[in-house]
Amino acid sequence: MSDVHGAAPGSAETRNSLTLRYLGIYTYREAIVFMRTDCHICRSVGFTVQSRVQVSRGGRTVIATVNMVDGDLLAEGEASLSESAWEALGANPGDAIVVSHPPPIGSLSHLRAKIYGERLDEPAMRSIIGDVAAGYYSDLHLAAFVTACAGERLDIDETVALTRAMIGVGTRLAWPRSPIMDKHSVGGLPGNRTTMLVVPIVAAAGLTIPKTSSRAITSPAGTADTMETLAPVVLDVAAMRRVVEREGGCIVWGGSVALSPADDVLIGVERPLDIDSEGQLVASVLSKKAAVGSTHVVIDMPIGSTAKVRSAATAERLGARLTAVAEAIGITVRVLPSDGSQPVGRGIGPALEARDVLKVLRGEHDAPPDLRSRALRLAAAVLDLSGAFPNDAGAATAAAILDDGRAWRKFVAICESQGGMREPPTAGHRRPVVAHQRGRVVAIDNRRLARMAKLAGAPQAPAAGIEFFSPIGTEVEPGQSLFVVHAQAPGELDYAFDYLAGQQDVVRIEERA
Amino acid sequence: MSDVHGAAPGSAETRNSLTLRYLGIYTYREAIVFMRTDCHICRSVGFTVQSRVQVSRGGRTVIATVNMVDGDLLAEGEASLSESAWEALGANPGDAIVVSHPPPIGSLSHLRAKIYGERLDEPAMRSIIGDVAAGYYSDLHLAAFVTACAGERLDIDETVALTRAMIGVGTRLAWPRSPIMDKHSVGGLPGNRTTMLVVPIVAAAGLTIPKTSSRAITSPAGTADTMETLAPVVLDVAAMRRVVEREGGCIVWGGSVALSPADDVLIGVERPLDIDSEGQLVASVLSKKAAVGSTHVVIDMPIGSTAKVRSAATAERLGARLTAVAEAIGITVRVLPSDGSQPVGRGIGPALEARDVLKVLRGEHDAPPDLRSRALRLAAAVLDLSGAFPNDAGAATAAAILDDGRAWRKFVAICESQGGMREPPTAGHRRPVVAHQRGRVVAIDNRRLARMAKLAGAPQAPAAGIEFFSPIGTEVEPGQSLFVVHAQAPGELDYAFDYLAGQQDVVRIEERA
Repeated sequence: MSDVHGAAPGSAETRNSLTLRYLGIYTYREAIVFMRTDCHICRSVGFTVQSRVQVSRGGRTVIATVNMVDGDLLAEGEASLSESAWEALGANPGDAIVVSHPPPIGSLSHLRAKIYGERLDEPAMRSIIGDVAAGYYSDLHLAAFVTACAGERLDIDETVALTRAMIGVGTRLAWPRSPIMDKHSVGGLPGNRTTMLVVPIVAAAGLTIPKTSSRAITSPAGTADTMETLAPVVLDVAAMRRVVEREGGCIVWGGSVALSPADDVLIGVERPLDIDSEGQLVASVLSKKAAVGSTHVVIDMPIGSTAKVRSAATAERLGARLTAVAEAIGITVRVLPSDGSQPVGRGIGPALEARDVLKVLRGEHDAPPDLRSRALRLAAAVLDLSGAFPNDAGAATAAAILDDGRAWRKFVAICESQGGMREPPTAGHRRPVVAHQRGRVVAIDNRRLARMAKLAGAPQAPAAGIEFFSPIGTEVEPGQSLFVVHAQAPGELDYAFDYLAGQQDVVRIEERA
Repeated sequence: MSDVHGAAPGSAETRNSLTLRYLGIYTYREAIVFMRTDCHICRSVGFTVQSRVQVSRGGRTVIATVNMVDGDLLAEGEASLSESAWEALGANPGDAIVVSHPPPIGSLSHLRAKIYGERLDEPAMRSIIGDVAAGYYSDLHLAAFVTACAGERLDIDETVALTRAMIGVGTRLAWPRSPIMDKHSVGGLPGNRTTMLVVPIVAAAGLTIPKTSSRAITSPAGTADTMETLAPVVLDVAAMRRVVEREGGCIVWGGSVALSPADDVLIGVERPLDIDSEGQLVASVLSKKAAVGSTHVVIDMPIGSTAKVRSAATAERLGARLTAVAEAIGITVRVLPSDGSQPVGRGIGPALEARDVLKVLRGEHDAPPDLRSRALRLAAAVLDLSGAFPNDAGAATAAAILDDGRAWRKFVAICESQGGMREPPTAGHRRPVVAHQRGRVVAIDNRRLARMAKLAGAPQAPAAGIEFFSPIGTEVEPGQSLFVVHAQAPGELDYAFDYLAGQQDVVRIEERA
């Protein structure tokens, strides 16, 4: 027994301390701590590659995954962080961090119960969502949770519990009036920028509509990207509130106000897995609506074989669930199914979509009629749902506000209030895709069109995208433009056309008999 | 239309090429490609942080996840890889790689079907396991698959299909004789090193037993770690075959012969998730047995509140499933439930466990009787199951082989054949944990004991671990050693005792009435 009475050399705190060095590695949301393979902490505490550890600096902590570094990237006694971990800790190069075992994740027993097929009650959901929002779950835990809730594995009560839990970990705006109106599109339809028309119409009608929108994640443009070509969209909660108090409405990026942090984390794994979970979709939509303080929400649900909702049966089930859960959390919802068979308007990509919106707002002769009619239908539903326009006066009121220029003036005022209106950019490089036969357009592949727009640079290159001239029913001649690809660099045009070469029937034409 | 007829500048191949720089970053199995945030490929093709991409060098490819790097870690036109990706590509610094969109993963539709609760047939399982073994699945996909198969979500037919699929993507050894014997322990019990006794007894009895064992992943020692303190265990398939042909048996590290590549990948996500899946456990065990060519397998299943199998009911269900699936793939299995309430033998940690094994083999007076009797029971079952020892002669034969020194001589011969026998190391630093009261030991927390052994350095420090003196029923006096912690460095002793300070009742003592 050589060491029976030996005292411990130094406290656990100092023994676990390392100095931060900057490496500039981006891993998206995932917090990574880079440590040397011969690091004394790893050797003695048993941390190894993929260990989950707690990293502390001052009073702030983050749960991170260990990656190891061999060679001279890090000196002895040094460690580094992924960008999201630098940010979470508010750390600077040279700071001392302490690496230690993370606290046990209290909700994992509930996660396991759900994985094994048990139902979760509201305290269990709150426990899970609290740990998700705190960043305690690894990507593996998140993927397991999303999988365990996939399809119809959450019943209505569990969906209500999940929605309440997601609201509970976020911010919730309160307004000194009622109703607070809102709209949402279930998505998957390129060019469906009705929000930028519905908000000014509804605000010009005297109602309140504090709208937050998302950026594109897998699509060529989100409403926030499109709006950003016309006005700033990155506003904090106080700035958003000022715009709404002044103009009755706003169109800002939801990410900048961070109203539903757990949803942001879950979406980060749902998208790459491409799993549909009705319960999570409902909780995601409604928790964000509750967060901005909405009391009445119109939901646009496009149905089509290449849209997110592919059948009327799915739309009906999803609509019923949205309505039931909304009622349980005190929100009135009206679901409007719509045609999701082809893109809306002519533009696909931020600036091109913005031009469509401007044409409709200004009443120009070549404004896309489908975008106009979809927006009017939704605006009418919002007005009717508010109760402020009795006897179904919503449709006539919405059309009047759009036609007499009030919607346009309100849109300009909202843009100015968000930081100043600007012109959308135009692309320097364009190349058409032409018809090779005479005939009639019978089908459009929304997903492949979206893919080409992304390869051309959208949404990072805001002027990039597709200008689409061949909706279903168009009669075409050989050599006629079906659509034109726009790009900010010639190489990006090439990528889009390299992809097109391997595809057939992005626009399907049938010869006349 | 400024670019209607412009030719593409260069082929897609050269436009997507980058030069490799070495950074030395370890991420365990995960293939990561590090690219600059302003990389022309990312900008033009739309790759971003977390994108899954195909990285090619020469004829070899790997599917990797994109991390981005800002600052001067990488120069323009450079990229780097995680260690597992360097290895998969056989790449060297300065090599050119091509980064492109990965081929679509064909089996994801089957994965989704399983997530939504459908049953998978054998072609679907083969498709999934083929993509898993090829490295096409991200960690998120793997976590989703493991979750979708959790608990009892795989029925017997699906488990058979999964087992066959896992066998199909691996190597399968063939032997010019029959039967080929094997044993397996379900695990969770510190010190349960019966393999190192069963193999020499069975081989000395004239049977063939080509045993592969695992290293510790979450425990203080795997059988491969313990065996390695006495002889080399990293043998390739040809070397393993030579040992078995000469001595009738071997004890080698399964990882070095890589017989079940899909299982190795799935275990990488099952462990951190800590999800039990009966179907996957059965497929994992049996695919590895099939891979080494076993025809008859005895399975030791310790049952205890801190062991892997916690109840007799679980043991019975799991045993029935193992037997049924084994029969379907042509393997005869016999399951032996055993006591899993406390550690086996005195040592916990590679060298300390090896000393216990040596004492039993040499018949020393202080050999742990529990390790001896467990090993004899299993060896007897293997002999009986082989059909070569009629009338239940297995027990008497096994005892005779152990007692007359034949097992010891066979063990020495196997060690020599694997590369040479050696002495296990001893630890320079030891500190006892003593009883604070008079009484009787009534319970042992296997998990906390294992944790202390790991904090003391096991298995990386092979001499580290715990020497355990207080099995259930031991009468102790105040100041009497319950166990002694061994470490190769004083700091590691401190870590183990820092942990102990926060725990109670690792060994629970009740006062006599």
